[in-house]
Amino acid sequence: MRDVAIIGIGMTKFGELWEKSLRDLAVEAALKCLADAGTDRIDSITIGCMTGGLFNGQEHLASLIPDYLGRRNTPAVRVESACASGGMAVRAAFMEVASGMSDYVLALGVEKMNDVSGDLATAALATAADGDYEAFHGINFPGLYALMARAHMEKYGTTREQLALVAVKNHRNGALNPHSQFPMEITVDTVLKSAGVADPLCLFDCSPVTDGAAAVLLTTVDEAKKLGKQPLVVISGIGAATDTIALSQRKDILKLEAIELAAQRALKMAGKTIKDIQFAEVHDCFTIAEIMVIEALGIVEPGQGGPATAAGLTALDGKFPINPSGGLKSKGHPVGATGVAQICEAVTQLRRQAGKRQIKNAKTALTQNMGGSGGSCVIHILEAK
Amino acid sequence: MRDVAIIGIGMTKFGELWEKSLRDLAVEAALKCLADAGTDRIDSITIGCMTGGLFNGQEHLASLIPDYLGRRNTPAVRVESACASGGMAVRAAFMEVASGMSDYVLALGVEKMNDVSGDLATAALATAADGDYEAFHGINFPGLYALMARAHMEKYGTTREQLALVAVKNHRNGALNPHSQFPMEITVDTVLKSAGVADPLCLFDCSPVTDGAAAVLLTTVDEAKKLGKQPLVVISGIGAATDTIALSQRKDILKLEAIELAAQRALKMAGKTIKDIQFAEVHDCFTIAEIMVIEALGIVEPGQGGPATAAGLTALDGKFPINPSGGLKSKGHPVGATGVAQICEAVTQLRRQAGKRQIKNAKTALTQNMGGSGGSCVIHILEAK
Repeated sequence: MRDVAIIGIGMTKFGELWEKSLRDLAVEAALKCLADAGTDRIDSITIGCMTGGLFNGQEHLASLIPDYLGRRNTPAVRVESACASGGMAVRAAFMEVASGMSDYVLALGVEKMNDVSGDLATAALATAADGDYEAFHGINFPGLYALMARAHMEKYGTTREQLALVAVKNHRNGALNPHSQFPMEITVDTVLKSAGVADPLCLFDCSPVTDGAAAVLLTTVDEAKKLGKQPLVVISGIGAATDTIALSQRKDILKLEAIELAAQRALKMAGKTIKDIQFAEVHDCFTIAEIMVIEALGIVEPGQGGPATAAGLTALDGKFPINPSGGLKSKGHPVGATGVAQICEAVTQLRRQAGKRQIKNAKTALTQNMGGSGGSCVIHILEAK
Repeated sequence: MRDVAIIGIGMTKFGELWEKSLRDLAVEAALKCLADAGTDRIDSITIGCMTGGLFNGQEHLASLIPDYLGRRNTPAVRVESACASGGMAVRAAFMEVASGMSDYVLALGVEKMNDVSGDLATAALATAADGDYEAFHGINFPGLYALMARAHMEKYGTTREQLALVAVKNHRNGALNPHSQFPMEITVDTVLKSAGVADPLCLFDCSPVTDGAAAVLLTTVDEAKKLGKQPLVVISGIGAATDTIALSQRKDILKLEAIELAAQRALKMAGKTIKDIQFAEVHDCFTIAEIMVIEALGIVEPGQGGPATAAGLTALDGKFPINPSGGLKSKGHPVGATGVAQICEAVTQLRRQAGKRQIKNAKTALTQNMGGSGGSCVIHILEAK
């Protein structure tokens, strides 16, 4: 297997981008990525997008995007695993480079969600749940995560305030990120007094509906060295795993098996343990998700996600910063772009280009991107060499 | 790059399968594939499906399918490139094995199209065209291929009867295939007297709306040898390419650039020319498509697709049999499954298990799977060793 490096990153601003279409967003992120990489070579493209069909009446992005990028004839493929589509696109690009099939592969993530009304967006997102046994009966993702939140509170004593503190911390970070959809600081009160969505989750517990795109350019470590990339950012581990799609079919709805397994696989491939990781971008689609994910990753013990957040462990200046970018909560969550954007943030940190949100001495990062209520997960380990 | 073999194939019957759901179809094909392979080892799964969101309200097949297959926690990803989704799923599986990321990868294709009405199915399929510049203005795939057919008739003198002869030949082959949706022989008259769809194309020029699934199991050649597989069927070449998605943006709507380039790339990788190939499964979504594809592949000169078909070149007992399976036209076209099913047929032929439709001395095959009006294409070269 050839070693793989990331030599370019690019992102659009995240938000309600009424003036930009799906193809505009993808092209903007890709061009920024090429400018950052200092090369315009692309041998192949992978595209993470959850549901262009339902949001935009547009499948076949594999044909659309290369053309609008000015790369007609370039091999391309779309990759989907619900909200983990972006991370899976990077994984696909990694294997294409690692195998020797292509030398320079652009991994792009994009979602244009605001072209449909809010209720249609919620219905489109619900196709990431089990259609026959969940979504068709009326439950959607705020409802599914609310079930997990309530169970977590019951079993571990996690408090409503601890959930809110995840959002407060991520907005504090996101306020320092020029890409953020909601770059404002909030308080616990902001969260608790926001409209109820699915008890116990309120509006400010939920990541927003977002338009946006992100891209990374991958090549071999040998090629990256030839280009003189310093620091050299490598993908040293990747792990993917799945779990049953329906929450009701899990032995324990507080156990995120796909996340645990993906982490084990990625860390093993990188020859590391979680203690070797300095910071992580994780999939905080809801506040409870971040708490459960840091437990599943082994950063804290099961049940300790809430207290650890309250104690500042995961703050930008804490012992294990989580979501320095602002996470899905503040930066925004254009579904297919999210996994790629997490990697953009990790690379920015590893290159020490994160400005006011820079983590000191950043050398080793983990990104965790998941689909649905944890039905799929992909984890990348990135290192600055 | 590790060498890759196909050690198992499995297919459902193609048709209007009212009694089977999307997940049922996927699981049935996968289990048949494992039974055929004589192993139940799967390290990872790739799933080709065009638009589960629009047909079934179900994205996130990467989570759904492993679970229903009894393989909870297995890494999986869905791959989409419109009607080339199946072929791209096999390509993704190939790279996963070739890279060393996984040793046994199941490539599955599935589409359940009959759960929506015919007009909704046509609208869902139209998302493979350019949404902003084609589909939203009312043109759909019968219309786009009709434009190509009319131009082909005008430029080359291709006749209405020659188009019909593609369907007649494919139904003759499909009548010998137990998987076929429409296993009946037809005549030129059947085609010409069928209802007009988009002039000059009639109902019997069009591939049907189909439910179905197909699967192949890939591993390294070394593993396949250990399992004693005889004959050893290897994937010796893969080529992918794209073209502008909108027909109106092409320099020449009779030139299928993505097909030409994908063929060149696949043949180069296999160290072959088209003259070394004995037969092919090609993407006959419409009769005109098969004629244009055999021209783009270099099997006949541009403009000679019609006369060559009429002369029997592409018949089962011709010099270059095309679509021994019956093709999309007779066997059926469950979009995401088609590219995988083409490879199942090629393997069946290379193993000499095709019964009455067996091609003599079959040793080298090509499969050509394309998306939209030729906006994407993936080609595999298979050899029996």
